[in-house]
Amino acid sequence: MYPNWILQRAYLTPTRQALVFHEQSWTFEQLKEQSLQRAHQLTTLGVQQGSRVAIMGPSTPYFVMMLYACMHLQCEIVLLNRRLTKEELAYQLADSEAVMVLVADEDQEKLPPHVQQYTFSTIANSAEMAVDIAQEWSIQHTISIMYTSGTTGFPKGVRQTVGNHQASATASVLNIGLQTEDAWLCAVPLFHISGLSIIVRSLLYGNAIYLYDQFDVETITQHIIDGDVTHMSVVAVTLERILHTLEQQNAQASPRFKVMLAGGGPVPVDYLQRAYQRKLAVVQTYGMTETASQTATLTSEDGLRKIGSAGKPLFFNQLRINEPNGHGEGEICIRGPHVTPGYIGRYADKSTTVNGWLHTGDIGYIDAEGYLFVLDRRADLIISGGENIYPAEIENVLLTHPAVQEAGVCGQEDERWGQVPIAFVVLKETITTEQLQVFCQQKLARYKVPKEIIMVDELPRNGANKLLRRQLKKE
Amino acid sequence: MYPNWILQRAYLTPTRQALVFHEQSWTFEQLKEQSLQRAHQLTTLGVQQGSRVAIMGPSTPYFVMMLYACMHLQCEIVLLNRRLTKEELAYQLADSEAVMVLVADEDQEKLPPHVQQYTFSTIANSAEMAVDIAQEWSIQHTISIMYTSGTTGFPKGVRQTVGNHQASATASVLNIGLQTEDAWLCAVPLFHISGLSIIVRSLLYGNAIYLYDQFDVETITQHIIDGDVTHMSVVAVTLERILHTLEQQNAQASPRFKVMLAGGGPVPVDYLQRAYQRKLAVVQTYGMTETASQTATLTSEDGLRKIGSAGKPLFFNQLRINEPNGHGEGEICIRGPHVTPGYIGRYADKSTTVNGWLHTGDIGYIDAEGYLFVLDRRADLIISGGENIYPAEIENVLLTHPAVQEAGVCGQEDERWGQVPIAFVVLKETITTEQLQVFCQQKLARYKVPKEIIMVDELPRNGANKLLRRQLKKE
Repeated sequence: MYPNWILQRAYLTPTRQALVFHEQSWTFEQLKEQSLQRAHQLTTLGVQQGSRVAIMGPSTPYFVMMLYACMHLQCEIVLLNRRLTKEELAYQLADSEAVMVLVADEDQEKLPPHVQQYTFSTIANSAEMAVDIAQEWSIQHTISIMYTSGTTGFPKGVRQTVGNHQASATASVLNIGLQTEDAWLCAVPLFHISGLSIIVRSLLYGNAIYLYDQFDVETITQHIIDGDVTHMSVVAVTLERILHTLEQQNAQASPRFKVMLAGGGPVPVDYLQRAYQRKLAVVQTYGMTETASQTATLTSEDGLRKIGSAGKPLFFNQLRINEPNGHGEGEICIRGPHVTPGYIGRYADKSTTVNGWLHTGDIGYIDAEGYLFVLDRRADLIISGGENIYPAEIENVLLTHPAVQEAGVCGQEDERWGQVPIAFVVLKETITTEQLQVFCQQKLARYKVPKEIIMVDELPRNGANKLLRRQLKKE
Repeated sequence: MYPNWILQRAYLTPTRQALVFHEQSWTFEQLKEQSLQRAHQLTTLGVQQGSRVAIMGPSTPYFVMMLYACMHLQCEIVLLNRRLTKEELAYQLADSEAVMVLVADEDQEKLPPHVQQYTFSTIANSAEMAVDIAQEWSIQHTISIMYTSGTTGFPKGVRQTVGNHQASATASVLNIGLQTEDAWLCAVPLFHISGLSIIVRSLLYGNAIYLYDQFDVETITQHIIDGDVTHMSVVAVTLERILHTLEQQNAQASPRFKVMLAGGGPVPVDYLQRAYQRKLAVVQTYGMTETASQTATLTSEDGLRKIGSAGKPLFFNQLRINEPNGHGEGEICIRGPHVTPGYIGRYADKSTTVNGWLHTGDIGYIDAEGYLFVLDRRADLIISGGENIYPAEIENVLLTHPAVQEAGVCGQEDERWGQVPIAFVVLKETITTEQLQVFCQQKLARYKVPKEIIMVDELPRNGANKLLRRQLKKE
């Protein structure tokens, strides 16, 4: 058993700054008190301890408080991506069987109809009911659930346990170090593991979070120049915007700023060199929802020497390439206490690991010095502005249209977003690309809607009739 | 499964400095290579993987290499206290059923007769035999065994697992922080948990150890003044010597020096004030063999405000006082992943915990702000220069003498050592105190031999005839 993180942190360092949002700030003791109040209010509204609830909203202190309240109640928390369509959300709510959605007032209209829900303001205005808050948590307890798509089929709800999150945070600290005055700037979504892992680190490390609900590049860059914060998580596209802002002002990162963790796909070499000029240490990472954040990182010192590498595993993690000769290119496999025990819902019976090894579907190799290079993300994964897009998911949507006979989706390089999805379709009835675009917009989050739809006579397939998405790319 | 710490650390940071001893130093890669060589040599000499072996020697690189070699072979390593008598060692070797002793050449004569043994030089001169070194370790695997005495009966062999050590090191880092350039000065014995935990931290953190086989106060203090090291573990008596040396030179600790962990009993208030004058941050800790080092620590900031307190638990640990009213004085109980799963040998069946809680036998209370105060160490424990001395053990030795009818031992305050043991005896035959002293010297490590033996007509006992050791103290 492990202590309830929120209670333990408030006990150990009650007066330390925990959260900063615009002009307001909260100590760990204040977060504890307010989250306990929310837990008591949720109890009044019928949220049972240990039940599965979904939560949706922008990255605000209200969201953090609600998250902590659910943790106090040992709920299994389904973190909904607020960029999804009603259809996509409906799928996740049905699959997860979440008993209700706790939703920020401004996101209420994004929810599909007929969903049991409470807005944050309804909750905050409710009476409180006494409830025994668990002082300790089991290492196997599922704290969070995030949906991720895979090679084929439907999105899968990935369990992230107390043990997964703790292992991730402690392995990370052994890599990047820790000081009392460290502070993380969080401008990545809290519904992604990149954001949620900042929450976990804050509680375990006792560090403050500077939370942003918008990517306000001017203010964020100023924090880096002034050294108000020491750490930040970025994707390539946000890194570029910060670099651009630093360059415009001819400014440098403060010596107090320690490290920027860059995830969600490779960082262009040019960005690394520009960061170096601005004295901004960038650490490239390789991680995923199934590993509760980072598995490997490339240190800043190695950034230019090992360009394109995702570095070495964190201390408690193991990496290997699954290929017959023991070296060379193959599927990246991951083992460690940070690897999910499995899925919920439709895929609950699907094993995520083989002999403890997570087969990622990503292709890579490990060089002679032990550095990982990721060549291809699984399932021809398209990474657009840090969001994962699975071609199969878009193809499935296109195929539900009566006019579409075949569909193939791949990523196209894009200066701003890294990649964007484009689609190739074989028609059986006449339809315009505009009509197909509108159709997709109803079914898919905006970032997943193909930027271009191209009509073709046939799709490239191999002998087994398997779609060759890489071939599409060349076309 | 967790990675073999030595291989993983050498993989992640091969060229970092790992160990400094006098004028020599080793990188993590070099320690790996040399420890693997020793593992291959031990294999030639018949040491089986997973077997239980004992190890004895001063704190030298040879000792560290041998320890790592045994870890590679996944041996259960019995760490022998080289200050013990042959009789005491014979007990531990018999109880642990260690198949052999790996002994430093200079310690060979300290071993009891008829013990299967190899000296470090014999091992270093042996041929090497190939053996598969485990790449990963189970969390339940017992890495080390240390003997500790208890309230009653014989010394008990305490298991310390991979999980215990990892939990201890990660919980500690969340409290004291970590930077790449940190370096620990180790002048506490490696056969105690205070020393072994520095070894574990070095591997997990990637930090250098400055190792000392003698408490060379001049050189050690110079490291603190120069800031070559950032951390050190001390007991009250060694802290005093460092303070005295700083004061003589009118010197201060370097700003690079971060923290001194003071364990093995309370630190006198006067020392804390003197340390404050010398800008030396002292953190008081509470820990024991059964908890793989620290359970609680008092931060330096709180040092003077909460004088006499052992602070708050480390993040993953829980503390409570076992007493009927829920507050007030009572037995200190500890829960967490750092708590031993149990004993070996004679006490293998004795449970160490109740519902996961280790009942320490120590008496204390937790104040309104959650700070632990330790009032009495278990079993009237005497702490002398950081070594634990159990009155029962000395009493048992005295009682084996034919002239002794009853014996009672307690601690006497001592300016240098904190406490020293003194004995009260009721005789049945005439004998001199000198003769009893000589008898004790044959049976007990020097620091356990009573500094004074006082003949009395009767011992203070309660109604149940239980010896009242606290009453003895007053006499």
